[in-house]
Amino acid sequence: MAIKNVIVGQSGGPTAVINASLAGVFKAAKDMGANMVYGMRHGVEGLMKGNVVNLLDLIQTDQQLDTLKVTPSAYLGSCRFKMPPIEDDEEIYKKVFDILEKLNIGHFFYIGGNDSMDTIKKLSVYGRIIQSKITFIGIPKTIDNDLAVTDHTPGYGSAAKYIATAVREVILDATVYDIPTVTIIEIMGRNAGWLTAASALSRSENCDGPDLIYLPERVFESTKFIRDVRRALKKKTSIVVAVSEGIRVSSGRYVCDAISRTEEDAFGHKKLGGTASVLADLVDLEIGCKTRTIEFSTLQRCASHILSKTDVEEAFQAGYKGMELAAQGETGQMVVFERVCNDPYQLEYRSYNISKIANIEKIIPDLWISENGTDIKEELVEYIKPLIRGEVSPVYRNGVPVYLTLK
Amino acid sequence: MAIKNVIVGQSGGPTAVINASLAGVFKAAKDMGANMVYGMRHGVEGLMKGNVVNLLDLIQTDQQLDTLKVTPSAYLGSCRFKMPPIEDDEEIYKKVFDILEKLNIGHFFYIGGNDSMDTIKKLSVYGRIIQSKITFIGIPKTIDNDLAVTDHTPGYGSAAKYIATAVREVILDATVYDIPTVTIIEIMGRNAGWLTAASALSRSENCDGPDLIYLPERVFESTKFIRDVRRALKKKTSIVVAVSEGIRVSSGRYVCDAISRTEEDAFGHKKLGGTASVLADLVDLEIGCKTRTIEFSTLQRCASHILSKTDVEEAFQAGYKGMELAAQGETGQMVVFERVCNDPYQLEYRSYNISKIANIEKIIPDLWISENGTDIKEELVEYIKPLIRGEVSPVYRNGVPVYLTLK
Repeated sequence: MAIKNVIVGQSGGPTAVINASLAGVFKAAKDMGANMVYGMRHGVEGLMKGNVVNLLDLIQTDQQLDTLKVTPSAYLGSCRFKMPPIEDDEEIYKKVFDILEKLNIGHFFYIGGNDSMDTIKKLSVYGRIIQSKITFIGIPKTIDNDLAVTDHTPGYGSAAKYIATAVREVILDATVYDIPTVTIIEIMGRNAGWLTAASALSRSENCDGPDLIYLPERVFESTKFIRDVRRALKKKTSIVVAVSEGIRVSSGRYVCDAISRTEEDAFGHKKLGGTASVLADLVDLEIGCKTRTIEFSTLQRCASHILSKTDVEEAFQAGYKGMELAAQGETGQMVVFERVCNDPYQLEYRSYNISKIANIEKIIPDLWISENGTDIKEELVEYIKPLIRGEVSPVYRNGVPVYLTLK
Repeated sequence: MAIKNVIVGQSGGPTAVINASLAGVFKAAKDMGANMVYGMRHGVEGLMKGNVVNLLDLIQTDQQLDTLKVTPSAYLGSCRFKMPPIEDDEEIYKKVFDILEKLNIGHFFYIGGNDSMDTIKKLSVYGRIIQSKITFIGIPKTIDNDLAVTDHTPGYGSAAKYIATAVREVILDATVYDIPTVTIIEIMGRNAGWLTAASALSRSENCDGPDLIYLPERVFESTKFIRDVRRALKKKTSIVVAVSEGIRVSSGRYVCDAISRTEEDAFGHKKLGGTASVLADLVDLEIGCKTRTIEFSTLQRCASHILSKTDVEEAFQAGYKGMELAAQGETGQMVVFERVCNDPYQLEYRSYNISKIANIEKIIPDLWISENGTDIKEELVEYIKPLIRGEVSPVYRNGVPVYLTLK
């Protein structure tokens, strides 16, 4: 017997492989004979406006599915909508369930990060209250790698590969002149330094990697920073610093707040940026040598021209397994990764109670950060290494990658 | 009979293929039986300190040569040293020629842009005055594509491919939310808009490309800009603007000067940056919607993980042909490209009097820019298209590209 209708949405910041997870859910639903596979445009926000598409119409060929797998950003569009507590606004839940009932949905999937898992948690709880038969499954997604329980998150591997590669290239570029220079690379990461840590993967026998790495897990001290830079400049002419956008001083204040206006998004997250500039100003003031700042910006999450093959495959599997779990009647669960072995790398897919995952941020264990706080330890390098392995390329037409869009 | 000793240097800003040209000079010199192939560390500046290496020792295998071809930045290091006018400081010329005579140099190559061609020009003129037998050949290199006479410059194709691809990906990322957003991408280019124009190559049947493009060839007017943005926002929720760092207002003042401190380099070039931020501030002030700025920064010139195959091959050939010209006794010349046919694309390599090339900047012909000044015409698209065609990938080890370094 075929499964009931399926609906899937994407939420939060884009990644290079969130569409690979969408492809996984879609492929599994199709394999199981679903009559309708709906996609929400712009997540639950679009769903509430009735803005849904039928993916079976849109993705008809294997080639389209393959292209979707390597297309960056969110094919269905995304949102940053936060479901209110059930006790504050039951109407909104009634509305969502009304729409789902009208579409005769049996299985609901949401691909996203921490905030999206909160949506799955709330919808599954409300579903249980009203004795709905709809299953709710979360598919993890975030370049930040900050979700609890799961070994890592889809999206992190490709972002880490991009960062390691781009840092490698920026180091070559930055060390080309024979004059003292401090190049500061700003990398995404609000409270967790996983992405910034990936800059260390640029190291090889002929590349030192970043000379200094600053993570949000450690308090930033400007006097120590200047001391670190002075020491590094004694050893070589041109040094490269990798810094997380979210580093803070001991008072808890973001370093970037020293100069930049910061606004808050719907989740109360501060929009960061400008951390590298503050550090460059410090170097300019205290040391006076040439500085250059580079922000990897959104490219670190959407550069599908350089994907981790491991990441793409795992993201697809996360979606596929999610559909299998739902078909077995699981609800209120997130697909999680368990690393059974690191060498050779081996992963197993499981599910876990979403209430114990949502709204918890996983940061780098202190044991994986070097004592002086300016580097990462070998354990963390070994943890990241398998996640960036392997290359998948998009198809190029006229020199530019071909991607699938809803347009 | 084998040719005399060869020396080669790299100068100016790094590119993704300046090492492919170095590989071309090296391979040709080796094929012609040169006893010594010297490399200047950090251009003529290093040469004057006697800082030279023997490339025949450093590059011994075909695999090393292949890796060099796809390694970004300048393998030998670079400099921004400007040779003074001969009449101002003859001593420096005597010094350079003394060193060259001591190394028994027959052929001198300098791979670089406009300022480097000025060095070749001056050295070849001085060589003629003192009746030196050393030949001086310039190998073009600049992502800016602003050298005169040559159809285009090695380095431009790969930078253009990177820009077209990254803009494609940023557009996917920027249009993911259903809220009015203006994303402003800042692209390199002081006086010539060739790189910013390449953003238009992101267009395909399912991608509009940038909605607005601002080039330094046209005077920037802030009131027109706001009008353009308002009009674009009427048609779609999220728009993307590509802007050259070097746009100026009618007084000739750089737009980025409106806020940022600008310093001058040894050539009196202003260091630009912050143009996108000024434009974002304007949008914020006049329209008030969400803005995001992205600077492609040095990655647009050193991202060898995405290379144009056409560019790599032409850069290699430019070096190889340069050596052939020198062996025929040519001096004071630059290797130039002549496009014999655009479809199918066909290129011929020639040489040209460097005095008629150095210090002249080639900008985009006005006929290739749209009337409203916010887009480029099809002729320019057709001009760029063959230059970004084809892909070459570096070899990856542990998920990160392998590059060749002197270290």
